Amino acid sequence: MSELALLPITRLSAMMDAGETDAKALTRQFLQRIHGAGRALNCYVATCETTALAEARAAAERASARRRLGPLDGIPVAVKDNIDVAGVPTSNGFGGPAWRVPDEDSEIVRRLRAAGAVILGKLNMHEGALGATTDNPHFGRTINPYRAGYSPGGSSGGSGAAVAAGLCGAALGTDTGGSVRIPAAWCGLVGLKPSFGLISTRGVVPLSYRLDHAGPLTRTVADAATMLRVLAGFDPRCPDSRHAPEFPADDPAPGRLDGIRLGLLRNFDAEQQEPAVRQAFERALRQLSALGAHIVPIALPSYDAVQGRRAGFVRVEAEAAFVHAALYEREPQRFSPAMRHYLDYGRNLPATRLLAADRRIDRAAFELTECLQDVDAIVSSTTPQSAPAFDDHEPENAGSFCIPANFAGVPAVTVPMGADERGLPLGLQIIGPRHAEARVLRIAAGYEAASGVALTPPPLGAPPA
Amino acid sequence: MSELALLPITRLSAMMDAGETDAKALTRQFLQRIHGAGRALNCYVATCETTALAEARAAAERASARRRLGPLDGIPVAVKDNIDVAGVPTSNGFGGPAWRVPDEDSEIVRRLRAAGAVILGKLNMHEGALGATTDNPHFGRTINPYRAGYSPGGSSGGSGAAVAAGLCGAALGTDTGGSVRIPAAWCGLVGLKPSFGLISTRGVVPLSYRLDHAGPLTRTVADAATMLRVLAGFDPRCPDSRHAPEFPADDPAPGRLDGIRLGLLRNFDAEQQEPAVRQAFERALRQLSALGAHIVPIALPSYDAVQGRRAGFVRVEAEAAFVHAALYEREPQRFSPAMRHYLDYGRNLPATRLLAADRRIDRAAFELTECLQDVDAIVSSTTPQSAPAFDDHEPENAGSFCIPANFAGVPAVTVPMGADERGLPLGLQIIGPRHAEARVLRIAAGYEAASGVALTPPPLGAPPA
Repeated sequence: MSELALLPITRLSAMMDAGETDAKALTRQFLQRIHGAGRALNCYVATCETTALAEARAAAERASARRRLGPLDGIPVAVKDNIDVAGVPTSNGFGGPAWRVPDEDSEIVRRLRAAGAVILGKLNMHEGALGATTDNPHFGRTINPYRAGYSPGGSSGGSGAAVAAGLCGAALGTDTGGSVRIPAAWCGLVGLKPSFGLISTRGVVPLSYRLDHAGPLTRTVADAATMLRVLAGFDPRCPDSRHAPEFPADDPAPGRLDGIRLGLLRNFDAEQQEPAVRQAFERALRQLSALGAHIVPIALPSYDAVQGRRAGFVRVEAEAAFVHAALYEREPQRFSPAMRHYLDYGRNLPATRLLAADRRIDRAAFELTECLQDVDAIVSSTTPQSAPAFDDHEPENAGSFCIPANFAGVPAVTVPMGADERGLPLGLQIIGPRHAEARVLRIAAGYEAASGVALTPPPLGAPPA
Repeated sequence: MSELALLPITRLSAMMDAGETDAKALTRQFLQRIHGAGRALNCYVATCETTALAEARAAAERASARRRLGPLDGIPVAVKDNIDVAGVPTSNGFGGPAWRVPDEDSEIVRRLRAAGAVILGKLNMHEGALGATTDNPHFGRTINPYRAGYSPGGSSGGSGAAVAAGLCGAALGTDTGGSVRIPAAWCGLVGLKPSFGLISTRGVVPLSYRLDHAGPLTRTVADAATMLRVLAGFDPRCPDSRHAPEFPADDPAPGRLDGIRLGLLRNFDAEQQEPAVRQAFERALRQLSALGAHIVPIALPSYDAVQGRRAGFVRVEAEAAFVHAALYEREPQRFSPAMRHYLDYGRNLPATRLLAADRRIDRAAFELTECLQDVDAIVSSTTPQSAPAFDDHEPENAGSFCIPANFAGVPAVTVPMGADERGLPLGLQIIGPRHAEARVLRIAAGYEAASGVALTPPPLGAPPA
């Protein structure tokens, strides 16, 4: 029975349609795992047991009446703790007593509930979404299900670990410079950062208005498409929402990639990659070529990956200081010394320094957008390294391959690309032009099917030391 | 012969096609007016006599051979002095010896030359493009051709006065918060601020990367369309350039406006308008209704016009400080006390204050963009007042109705709307959705034809006191 929790949500949905499982059984199983062996991973900061079981009952009744609302009806999902769920505190990874208890669901949680999904609870995250390890000083470390003592990535680390470990069917994360894709890659999952404005961020604690994107972490590409179909949509109450062409209703078919041109961004050579990552990426390129894709070396005319990610940090630290100014002023003890350092940096930053960073970001966005006119998509490893041990130094370049897609507001997905010698998962990133989510997911589905990579973490409670 | 200088460029082009005039005669006439009676208006800071005459000769030869390059071939135009013309200093309205002598034409001057236009010279502007009077402390005041002692508007004041007074056929200006539309309105002209990124700003001294737009000042709507066709186009070397649908080749036909929905923005009621402006605008609304348009009161949900323009000032002063940091550090004496005050403000501004202003701008842009989904266009008076006397206090809200279109990056045109009791021209503004230049110009052409407003300034050298 336990392995149900590790099935893709598309499969669970088909089983519900066929009467082979129901939302109540599934929800109870997830809750048992969360409160049982899964507790050691420290993924959840709160569970919504009562409402989840009520939602599951309602979903099960609809399924019995053959009136399921769609493929997410009855599917248990969980939510990063910077995303509002009505009546549940939103910590944003900050310490101290509840400081934000929303009356209203965020737009994306509202959409999930409207589609019948069961909201299991809130997931741990890197403090303030400003980092990639989920070594949270207030809520503790979330552990990578693939290896004890290792980070699941971040900032959506609870989301990555929970989906990987079968503690929810899919999860919501947010991605300002890789925060969905990094934990998805390091936990052997699919993570999608959509086009800017495609998924509403209303009711999500901002980190950077300019760079924030919400997105799903899922077990498969088809699961990501299923989530996207429910999450995407214009929100007239969100000033960062944008109109977009409708996403196709069909799942991305895992087929050949004949004639597809995939760009290899030379600018990323500036970042040191671990040998295992390089080898896995080279293998992925061979598999993509075997599927019929053309691999095309390309370069952004002036983009410097190291200076680019630093410009992103400047922007994000300034915006964090702006967004949290009042809370920081009033209750500085909620923030760790590291977070205070970031906030102080942002608070003391002159506007002209921010503008210099912004100008670099503008140019990167322009160059990436232009470059995506010459190829169908860009491929890279998602991160230059696999998950670091908590005792190691935190890598400062984990988001270096991710952040250009935030600058340009274009869709990017990570899909599992095998594992390193310690069994830690790696990710392949596919970046496409704005609103080309369907194309990016189709390429990802082709690779996913052909690569034969399907990672399963060790049994709960026994991650290898 | 002298009245040739006051004809629309579409008419001059037709006369060249018919052999009724040629580029040499026309260029000589403009140069005579510039150096003769026109000198008192102080429009030009430099003329390009030798190259202009050579360009005119070449254009005349093409016309004789019936090989004109298009409607701008042989048409004398002039250029605001923040726009690069190769080999001619670009002052940007700053004092002191030449600090920027470009090797290369700006992209828009390159486009004009490639279309055969004759570049007559460089036009005075408000210091640093940061104001609306063109009372320049280094180059002197440019005088409104309609009334001695009155401002032509700004910052493209030289452009407005020169076209109005028949000192060039059309002019280039730049518009960060109304700087094309204000002088066009106050000088009885058509002024077009296009969609963001439609006209390249490469080789234009930046004021605000986010809000800057280049655009033409012309005698008629058809002239504006003729200029736009040459000026618009993607520029891969300009990071603020954007791809856009092609602008139609036909001139906007001045026809009925049956069924066109024109929004009346209630948010603008927050600004005090002069009675003459209000009356002229009400007359314009009656004329638009008579053409078949529906006038629809609308409102942006949260936009405050006064706070909005202040947010624009914050953004612009921060960006000015960023752009001119090195020059200001090295040679502060180039800047007037007022300009130094702005630059000091920008230099000392914390990033978080800029972000607060930006957030207001983001929201305004979103609300205006959304609002433009409900109507075909928005109409307003272009400014709350007619041109001020130099001796009067400079109005601080001259750009208040203009700047929302800069925030949203949407097209806006001003078209003559009569004059106040002193004979000072007024403008009607039409704002449309992004890339709807053709629609905005069609509405403007309909109004222009039906309104019967065709202003002609008093003879050169004799503006009424």
